[in-house]
Amino acid sequence: MIKQILISDPTLRDGNHACAHQLNAEQIAIYAEAADKAGVPIVEVGHGNGLGASSLQVGLSKEDDKTILETARKHLNKSKLGIHVIPGFATIKRDLVNAIDIGVDVIRVASHCTEADITQRHLGYVRERGKEAYGVLMMSHMASASVLVEEAQKMELYGAEGIIIMDSAGAYLPSDVQEKISALVNGLKVPVGFHAHNNLGMAIANSIMAIESGAKILDGTARGFGAGAGNAQLEVLVAVLEKMGYVTGIDLYKILDASDIAEKEIMSIVPTIKSDSIVSGLSGVFSGFAKHVTRISNEYEVDPRDVYRELGKRKIVGGQEDMIIEVVMDLIRNRK
Amino acid sequence: MIKQILISDPTLRDGNHACAHQLNAEQIAIYAEAADKAGVPIVEVGHGNGLGASSLQVGLSKEDDKTILETARKHLNKSKLGIHVIPGFATIKRDLVNAIDIGVDVIRVASHCTEADITQRHLGYVRERGKEAYGVLMMSHMASASVLVEEAQKMELYGAEGIIIMDSAGAYLPSDVQEKISALVNGLKVPVGFHAHNNLGMAIANSIMAIESGAKILDGTARGFGAGAGNAQLEVLVAVLEKMGYVTGIDLYKILDASDIAEKEIMSIVPTIKSDSIVSGLSGVFSGFAKHVTRISNEYEVDPRDVYRELGKRKIVGGQEDMIIEVVMDLIRNRK
Repeated sequence: MIKQILISDPTLRDGNHACAHQLNAEQIAIYAEAADKAGVPIVEVGHGNGLGASSLQVGLSKEDDKTILETARKHLNKSKLGIHVIPGFATIKRDLVNAIDIGVDVIRVASHCTEADITQRHLGYVRERGKEAYGVLMMSHMASASVLVEEAQKMELYGAEGIIIMDSAGAYLPSDVQEKISALVNGLKVPVGFHAHNNLGMAIANSIMAIESGAKILDGTARGFGAGAGNAQLEVLVAVLEKMGYVTGIDLYKILDASDIAEKEIMSIVPTIKSDSIVSGLSGVFSGFAKHVTRISNEYEVDPRDVYRELGKRKIVGGQEDMIIEVVMDLIRNRK
Repeated sequence: MIKQILISDPTLRDGNHACAHQLNAEQIAIYAEAADKAGVPIVEVGHGNGLGASSLQVGLSKEDDKTILETARKHLNKSKLGIHVIPGFATIKRDLVNAIDIGVDVIRVASHCTEADITQRHLGYVRERGKEAYGVLMMSHMASASVLVEEAQKMELYGAEGIIIMDSAGAYLPSDVQEKISALVNGLKVPVGFHAHNNLGMAIANSIMAIESGAKILDGTARGFGAGAGNAQLEVLVAVLEKMGYVTGIDLYKILDASDIAEKEIMSIVPTIKSDSIVSGLSGVFSGFAKHVTRISNEYEVDPRDVYRELGKRKIVGGQEDMIIEVVMDLIRNRK
């Protein structure tokens, strides 16, 4: 039996979180070409928060969506071109129509883990246009296994051909992944996927646990380039999967080359697990908040770890970046 | 039931591999003090290859053993002072007598995983002097579970009060750790420990699997500072163990502070998983070889990945650094 795993590589999308969305066209071209050569099945590109998200609030992209997509399209031959789409950031008329016209192959429509309802129209439109449609549940640690199954079933009903859960805060241990992925595999007809973050050093182990629990799709990025402590490191994932007898279709030496190129050409710094990221993971706070929390905490001289703990208690999610200031002000007030 | 785990921190010993053994007295003082404040039970110091190992062949230390030990001793109050001792590098008369006189509390006597015999006299001497004696089996992935048990039982017989196995090449997956640690826990009366390397991104997951399989002792270093892709990242380990309900006696915020200090004061670079380290882990080659393999491969323009694969096939171990040149020469010869 061939144990085939579908790998999607959001280096050029989640990695944008790690560089304030400043990836430029040349960098996109260089890495897309290297990933394509290595046989990466899906290369996902865009603003960290996906299509149409470039804004003052969550950060302006270096390049607009059109440039990003056209550049990637031009440099991908065998790899499919993927995007991350959060309804609210991305509208069908303004964004999705154009993206599909440019030649996007795979569209992941994402919502907070308890809000699958918002994905219905976007998933429907993607299917209507004959493109591959996936549903993504973000911040999945905030919902129980049974709630995740309910939400995923909605996405399946809307036309999603696979469901990916994201550990957006890097909060999971392998036992958590086992519980949630098993429940989803049992509750769905379509394949299940997992997107890891490394705040607790578990990105690779959690990804492997997802597979061992029945998942068929994994996300990984070169050197783990991504929000906060980074994602599952793609080239490590490929090596470990190969060692375990799984088939990814990716050439090991060539993906090692691609990750070397990525480190040299697109990263000012390779993600490591900083102290704040650990507390962020323990608190269940979205990894994309890291840079904002560090900056604002330094500015107001509060302990960023206390900020994460409080954000965790208030169950803040992506899009609520303004709450960081509010939490910092409360911490200062309580100090007095 | 309190699930107590004994943590030993070789940041100032394994970390020396990551900086060509150039840790200086001031750096040793700064980190020892921070680790002591955080409540780290054992702080291990010395040349990367342990007591008496400073030499042209495996690298000259910035500071001699006496300076290293006296400096650490002076800055540790609650933490015990530990050393790594490989008979052959360290003699009893020249090295061990002095180390104990300076005030070392915990002595780990180490051998290759199939050569426990060489530890008998050293372990005997440590017990004679009334100090804590542990046995360490290095490169443990090269022996089967049953051989490891036999070798560990010898060390137990020689007086070891605990046995630590090292994944010196970062070659293990969690299932390997489960098999080997379970066998040791069943076959020994003394506690069992695990020392991880992160070549395959599994250092934290493997450490946790060791504990779940019955181990009671774990090694971890600040930011993973150590040979090759680094060790289990201590502050992550403490956070994960705490999340799982284990007790380490280490204060989370203070060990986060200690790791921030370590990053700032003692590391020119934080370990990440480079492409070569992945191949090194897959090939089962000692992580301490990384710098030499990179340097020599670049010099002779051969692919370092081919060098690792060949070193792995030849089952090269620490101390055989000269073989790197031999392998490189053979690769060049075969190319012609």
